[in-house]
Amino acid sequence: MSIETLKSRIAREFGTPAVVIDMDVVERNIARVQAACDAAGVANRPHIKTHKSPVIAALQVAAGARGITCQKLGEAEVMAAAGIDDILISYNLLGEEKMARLGRLLAGGTKVTVAADNPVVVSGLPAAAAQGGRTLDVVVEVDTGRKRAGVVTVAEAVALARDIAARPGLAFAGFMLYPPEDAMEATQAFLDAATRGVLEAGLPAPRIVSSGGTPNVANLGRIRGVTEHRPGTYVFNDRMMMRAGAARLQDCALAVCSTVVSRAEANRGILDAGSKTLTADTGGGLDGHGLILEHPDARIAGFSEEHGMLDLAGCANPPAIGDVVCIVPNHVCVVVNMVDRLVTVRGDEITGTLPVAARGRLT
Amino acid sequence: MSIETLKSRIAREFGTPAVVIDMDVVERNIARVQAACDAAGVANRPHIKTHKSPVIAALQVAAGARGITCQKLGEAEVMAAAGIDDILISYNLLGEEKMARLGRLLAGGTKVTVAADNPVVVSGLPAAAAQGGRTLDVVVEVDTGRKRAGVVTVAEAVALARDIAARPGLAFAGFMLYPPEDAMEATQAFLDAATRGVLEAGLPAPRIVSSGGTPNVANLGRIRGVTEHRPGTYVFNDRMMMRAGAARLQDCALAVCSTVVSRAEANRGILDAGSKTLTADTGGGLDGHGLILEHPDARIAGFSEEHGMLDLAGCANPPAIGDVVCIVPNHVCVVVNMVDRLVTVRGDEITGTLPVAARGRLT
Repeated sequence: MSIETLKSRIAREFGTPAVVIDMDVVERNIARVQAACDAAGVANRPHIKTHKSPVIAALQVAAGARGITCQKLGEAEVMAAAGIDDILISYNLLGEEKMARLGRLLAGGTKVTVAADNPVVVSGLPAAAAQGGRTLDVVVEVDTGRKRAGVVTVAEAVALARDIAARPGLAFAGFMLYPPEDAMEATQAFLDAATRGVLEAGLPAPRIVSSGGTPNVANLGRIRGVTEHRPGTYVFNDRMMMRAGAARLQDCALAVCSTVVSRAEANRGILDAGSKTLTADTGGGLDGHGLILEHPDARIAGFSEEHGMLDLAGCANPPAIGDVVCIVPNHVCVVVNMVDRLVTVRGDEITGTLPVAARGRLT
Repeated sequence: MSIETLKSRIAREFGTPAVVIDMDVVERNIARVQAACDAAGVANRPHIKTHKSPVIAALQVAAGARGITCQKLGEAEVMAAAGIDDILISYNLLGEEKMARLGRLLAGGTKVTVAADNPVVVSGLPAAAAQGGRTLDVVVEVDTGRKRAGVVTVAEAVALARDIAARPGLAFAGFMLYPPEDAMEATQAFLDAATRGVLEAGLPAPRIVSSGGTPNVANLGRIRGVTEHRPGTYVFNDRMMMRAGAARLQDCALAVCSTVVSRAEANRGILDAGSKTLTADTGGGLDGHGLILEHPDARIAGFSEEHGMLDLAGCANPPAIGDVVCIVPNHVCVVVNMVDRLVTVRGDEITGTLPVAARGRLT
């Protein structure tokens, strides 16, 4: 990637560790997944948790995305302020502080859809809709095997849809899924039964059926009734996506440039990127804390906060003190969230920096 | 703690998750460790990586600390800009971008000491000293068992001290240790031999011998020759410090206030604090990703980025949707680094917010 050839200039200009994205790869990733959605006849609603940048969100919308997905209200506020006008917040929002903010977001003219998986969350939403002065679309979050949020029975899904439809200012808009990649049939059965259930209850047919996940881009079209998809990580990709078969190395748009600062023993080294840069996220049990492009046989074996511990026992040609290396992280979304800006490159040029505008918006 | 009694007001005012510190506990922690250093006749040079706040650094200095320790040059820049004038950067600094910044820091009048564990790092430092227009104190980082940075033999330590002393603009100032808590004797032997070595080489006696770590506060005075100590985590404490016997629960000054947003099944729940708030840091193998004060038998079993997965199988009185809980994190230093501000409380009042001014200063 371009980042590798530019790494010395990046180190001189920005210091290390530096979190860098190759905009050519970003644009290819955006185009490829948009084309996959278009081919499947499914709208694209990318999840911005990966990049947290209104600039990249705008590229996704310009490429054909229907709107965006945010996980937190604070992310949606940043995106709305930047002009993104159609946002799904795929999260149970709860509490009067959040309802007041959601109301302001609606009142500001942004089309916001929210998810809910329980009646407590639903019962709070009318206050936001009232403050916003408009109907709030709500999708029922459904769990078909991931064991995260989401109702786990069809009966609960239908009951929640009825609850939503009965509340002032709320509209039952459909279902939100995040199916495990191996649960297409079970998800189809759940969705079909829940759809029958809401129709039998006299509710309107779901207008939105939202599925999610970059690995599930390969499954687009396999669940009948899905109207839109929420891929996130595809915009940058990482070792997790490579393991899932959802990306190749050349699809990884982000690397962390880091300097080897110590080689205290023959089989050990220290990177200047520790858990405050690469994070302790193992990517669901990947070996080592990142892939070093120049030394794939060097293992990032552990961390201190600002030290990445290199195990060089299996490394034929170990890096020297002062070497700058490029690391593809295990899980790119959490790495982006560590920094206030990304360095951008394109071809043989460092083109600038991009603020991670919604970084740290955890509420 | 006060945070528990104020949690509902915190949630209403700031939303959740909120990272909150109790300033009474912070001040007690600062006073207690300062007193321990005073009693041992060892100067206190607290490590600001835990709080990244010039305001708290100023409290530490006002309580008697000789100066502060920073891990990254960017942290030192923030602290110097806020008027902290005596800073040890306990890290190998490398590369022309960093040397230029280090030179500017020196030129600005801040007394800066840096660490080095290899000749490549030492060879770069004269450029910074020259730009700064003053002599740069350098300590040799020594590893007596932690296997992080630091020379591992006495011969290397002496050779590096000679190298430093021979370079224009650099002064050999002494040694920096970060001894494992069970390696007092080995550390003493190393230090004694290295000190003899530098004296035999005709170098001045070490002016600085710096030891580190909150758990090693209990070992103050056990290594003869130590002149100053670098405790960090003690200012807030966490589950790691409790496990190490270095803190009690009432010494933990920081908690994350989080709302239960889903209870999809009887034995499961979801917190609105995931790996982008609590981080995936296990604190060196602690069970669960934090201690929930109200439900110590509820286990934070895993994370998505914005979901904390509660395993409630062993929980006698599980939390309900909408409940706000207070979580003592596994490793507080990495949690503080996720947020731009901390909420502060004292007694029965929310007193405001404190910017984490050096957050994200990873270079």
